[in-house]
Amino acid sequence: LNGDKSKFLALYERERMKVEERLNDALKNREPHSLYKPAVYILKSGGKRLRPLLVLFSAKAAGGKFSKAYNAAVAVELLHNFTLVHDDIMDNADKRRGRLTVHKKYDLSTAILAGDSLLSVAYEYLLKDSGDHLKEVLDSFTHGLVEVCEGQSMDKDFELLNEVSINEYILMIEKKTAAMAEMCCIIGANIACASKQEIKALAGFGKNIGIAFQIQDDLLDISANESEFGKFVGGDLVEGKKTYLFLKALEKSKGKDKKDFRGIIERKGIKLDEIPKFKALYCKLGVLEDARDEIIRYSNKALSKLKYLKKQEDRELFIWLTDSLIKRNR
Amino acid sequence: LNGDKSKFLALYERERMKVEERLNDALKNREPHSLYKPAVYILKSGGKRLRPLLVLFSAKAAGGKFSKAYNAAVAVELLHNFTLVHDDIMDNADKRRGRLTVHKKYDLSTAILAGDSLLSVAYEYLLKDSGDHLKEVLDSFTHGLVEVCEGQSMDKDFELLNEVSINEYILMIEKKTAAMAEMCCIIGANIACASKQEIKALAGFGKNIGIAFQIQDDLLDISANESEFGKFVGGDLVEGKKTYLFLKALEKSKGKDKKDFRGIIERKGIKLDEIPKFKALYCKLGVLEDARDEIIRYSNKALSKLKYLKKQEDRELFIWLTDSLIKRNR
Repeated sequence: LNGDKSKFLALYERERMKVEERLNDALKNREPHSLYKPAVYILKSGGKRLRPLLVLFSAKAAGGKFSKAYNAAVAVELLHNFTLVHDDIMDNADKRRGRLTVHKKYDLSTAILAGDSLLSVAYEYLLKDSGDHLKEVLDSFTHGLVEVCEGQSMDKDFELLNEVSINEYILMIEKKTAAMAEMCCIIGANIACASKQEIKALAGFGKNIGIAFQIQDDLLDISANESEFGKFVGGDLVEGKKTYLFLKALEKSKGKDKKDFRGIIERKGIKLDEIPKFKALYCKLGVLEDARDEIIRYSNKALSKLKYLKKQEDRELFIWLTDSLIKRNR
Repeated sequence: LNGDKSKFLALYERERMKVEERLNDALKNREPHSLYKPAVYILKSGGKRLRPLLVLFSAKAAGGKFSKAYNAAVAVELLHNFTLVHDDIMDNADKRRGRLTVHKKYDLSTAILAGDSLLSVAYEYLLKDSGDHLKEVLDSFTHGLVEVCEGQSMDKDFELLNEVSINEYILMIEKKTAAMAEMCCIIGANIACASKQEIKALAGFGKNIGIAFQIQDDLLDISANESEFGKFVGGDLVEGKKTYLFLKALEKSKGKDKKDFRGIIERKGIKLDEIPKFKALYCKLGVLEDARDEIIRYSNKALSKLKYLKKQEDRELFIWLTDSLIKRNR
């Protein structure tokens, strides 16, 4: 089993490098530099390249070749980076992965336009392969784009709302995060001319793993090991973000604790030195375990879809990927 | 001939209304409201709907039916409005067509996201008709999007440059304005399964009419009748914009006049009460006539492409359209 793990990791790394090469080429020799330099800057900030890998692995699982899916893999990563650049403006974020955000390194106009052009080149890449399933691929990509805009808008709405239910939160992350993972799997499957059943299975896997991924993100923000995490722990509380853990704590708490959590909404966040207090409250209320349970529940839901895949090897690859994602520490 | 004019105008108006109806439906019943309300707001600010009409007329000229081109017509107008919302942020514009711009009426985040979602729905509309030429239509649309981002980036670059040549200016408006008119004609032609020659002819018409249109815009800004124009005359000078007229004046002027024009670049614009002085300088240098000549030159270039169209009636429709555009007063 450990041998399989290192085999899958090697495959992930090998394909990630291939995506990386193609991402490097995507914006090369394009002008004006004022437009493409900031786009290259955000692309070079790294990341797991999870979305392109979902495209590639889904294509493989549907009996296709990696080679037919690289352009689409590049497209989804460009789309993802478009959302990062615009979201960072809206969130007024100074840093991403330890580097200045695009609007901080350059300026607002440059960042808006760099985001727009990342999206334009994403469609260009998607259109490079004119296979039989071009329409399905473009439908799925465009649907993903619509969803991610709607999800981001809901997320912004939540900042101003006093009441947000867990169900509303799940709907928001379905749109903002899960729809894009789902889209990646559907696109990969379509490129490989998958059957309807395979497409549905992979879509279901992507959607549920996306939800699990986002709750894991929320959980890591308060429970990660700071030296591994790469940023300080408790940032979501400081910013007063309505994460899964926060909403669950609000739901479960009573009396003074509830009042304190309500206070975070009113004050739009907490001070740095209050993080330990609220982390302790999270522990007392058991919301870290609740989050962990939900991550496992959605991961299992994702894994349950894999039975429709043809090869055991592909199932195992997705099991390994799921396992890596929910055990990640950053 | 006057009978033909009113016939063409009636056709334009009839089809514009049909586009209008479909634009009204495009964002109806969509949620969240926080996302789609501002998008509806910009769409309702009116405008000539020139781009959708170029799609429709090109489809007709290539032997197709209007009915097959409405979704694409909606798509290009949504794309156009995406550019308006984002450009207004970058230009720090307070008003558009007499109404507050989206980022002023709402806020920055709302405007960025409303723009993004207009683009996402544009692709959705483009994908509604899955004809034989879907790939060509999407290629053209995506190329137009890439170009408009590059053109806007060049336009922003020009703000900071001391030296901009007329050729660089023309390249910029080719990308920022003309590429989109060209795209509309190509899309309409493709939807109607036009021949390569027809596509090339209509593309050439669109591109050249686009350039003429933009120089006309520059000319109107200083020479329009204020009561018809809808905004105050001389705004480009006040903002220090490097328009066709400004660059031509800089090129032709000598001595103190040249120093005064250079001063506009350094000061990044002029005061309101200086407009008459610089308008008089434009007149003295003959740059209003130069602009008028260029508009006629590009219009004639556009019209020269029409010989490849099959029907005289379609040629006349485009001649009428060209004539209306270069004689417009707002």
